[in-house]
Amino acid sequence: MAVYTQVSAEEIDRFLTRFDVGTLVSVKGIAEGVENSNYLLETTQDKYILTLYEKRVDPADLPFFIALLDHLSAHGCLVPPMIADREGKKIQQLCGRSACLITFLSGVSVSSPTTTHAAAMGEALGDMHRALADFDQERRNVLDHDGWRALAEQCGPAQLDKIAPGLATAIAQELDYLDEHWPHDLPRAAIHADLFPDNVLMLDDKISGLIDFYFSCTDVRAYDLAVTHAAWCFSEDGTDFHDKISQALITGYASTFPISDAERKALPLLARGAALRFLLTRAYDWINTPADALVTRKDPQAFLNRLEYYQTHPDVFAI
Amino acid sequence: MAVYTQVSAEEIDRFLTRFDVGTLVSVKGIAEGVENSNYLLETTQDKYILTLYEKRVDPADLPFFIALLDHLSAHGCLVPPMIADREGKKIQQLCGRSACLITFLSGVSVSSPTTTHAAAMGEALGDMHRALADFDQERRNVLDHDGWRALAEQCGPAQLDKIAPGLATAIAQELDYLDEHWPHDLPRAAIHADLFPDNVLMLDDKISGLIDFYFSCTDVRAYDLAVTHAAWCFSEDGTDFHDKISQALITGYASTFPISDAERKALPLLARGAALRFLLTRAYDWINTPADALVTRKDPQAFLNRLEYYQTHPDVFAI
Repeated sequence: MAVYTQVSAEEIDRFLTRFDVGTLVSVKGIAEGVENSNYLLETTQDKYILTLYEKRVDPADLPFFIALLDHLSAHGCLVPPMIADREGKKIQQLCGRSACLITFLSGVSVSSPTTTHAAAMGEALGDMHRALADFDQERRNVLDHDGWRALAEQCGPAQLDKIAPGLATAIAQELDYLDEHWPHDLPRAAIHADLFPDNVLMLDDKISGLIDFYFSCTDVRAYDLAVTHAAWCFSEDGTDFHDKISQALITGYASTFPISDAERKALPLLARGAALRFLLTRAYDWINTPADALVTRKDPQAFLNRLEYYQTHPDVFAI
Repeated sequence: MAVYTQVSAEEIDRFLTRFDVGTLVSVKGIAEGVENSNYLLETTQDKYILTLYEKRVDPADLPFFIALLDHLSAHGCLVPPMIADREGKKIQQLCGRSACLITFLSGVSVSSPTTTHAAAMGEALGDMHRALADFDQERRNVLDHDGWRALAEQCGPAQLDKIAPGLATAIAQELDYLDEHWPHDLPRAAIHADLFPDNVLMLDDKISGLIDFYFSCTDVRAYDLAVTHAAWCFSEDGTDFHDKISQALITGYASTFPISDAERKALPLLARGAALRFLLTRAYDWINTPADALVTRKDPQAFLNRLEYYQTHPDVFAI
């Protein structure tokens, strides 16, 4: 959430000469996204995002992300594709980093979605899944069900219990339960896997963009709906479940993409998995980020609360 | 250089209803300026900067900054004035902070100024000083000559010598020299006091904006030229003096605002003072910022190098 690599205006000016995008009028480093360096550029032609990829994004994954965004964009989904230079190249090098010039999308991320927003989100997710039905590139989900146990072990029981007494046991029991019941025959597809409200742009209560595809991967498709549900349907701290938001999201999704019986049956479990995945990554970051660092640590408790809600309310998706 | 206070899009939307500026289309937290939280907003009408003032800016100083920017703007200087709400108010409250909505200026900050840039900078500084000749509000320079000894004491000799062996003695000797020779009868006026290239926006080799007036204050007017000189006429690390940039800056300034004989005589000393001021504040920040903090610590050595250059080249301003 900061600018890690400082790029001078002169370097950006030179960089832009590779493209047909006009000349630089304004540049601001922006505090946004996963751990990349992002600049908002305005040129004589248009606005763009310049992203330099730092440690969290493996440059080897960029071709997958680029193909995914191109595919979605070609199918009418509102996503920000990378821009090709005059030679057709989309992956550039800048200041020793892999870098892409990216289409800028207007819109703002809402913090407290309404049912109108949630319905629009569900529809956009369904549209995206439909568009991706014939997308055949694959990327392993490095944070999938198979990796959660290792992540819990990296946190360590003592450290987990420091976050919340009994957390280590709660996680161990949930891992056992998920291992026993995780579905292995549901349709798999390319998914976004991180559709929190900050990764969705809205204008006049309509979706104007889905962004930040750097966790996108191949996994159980309905798991994407489960992640989005966990991300949208609770108060930020996870203590309040918003039933109407939940219904609007699921109904919106089902109106554009069919949920099979097998998926509907599995969704409560997938949602437990989604809550556990964010609980684990937040716990890991919590343990490994100094309390006085400028990066805001996100509270793992917020997803323990969601996990407990899903454990005790298996009927959430039965609408 | 980060966003310290997170403001939701909904809060910014509500905030904007106080003004006649249209509705929100895009908002990005930007990594810029002194320790404030800054957002770049685009509305249906125009672009704006929203600044929330954090610990480094005393809200009691805002009326001075606002009056200064209004005065400069009324006199045709390219600066970003604060925008009044429908009731004429410019200082707002948002998320428990004083906040201002500010005019957005296009342009980019150059990292390696050319002589064309330096001449334009000199002229703009002269224009600014002329415009401020009849500005009568005052603000004490909290980082003026009188405060440098205390700042050195807060750093402590042991810590200073850790930055560079012998630094404590070098600073003590310079403080003695400046105390003995500091001019007390030069014209005083409102000055910017921090006109580094990052605080200057350029478009097509012309100045499009002077920004970040949060160190502006009342002090020896020629000291502003000395600060600007120290900021523009060296390589970033202070090891190379750029004579042609220096000449262009001074000539540009003198073409729009007269340098008196007394000022020209004092400039070598004022430049030593300017170098010491940034050496001291950088040393203080170096000592008080953890090495692993996300905030980039600026190297004090870069201004020790400048100080040594000014000490050994008293003829720099004799053009």
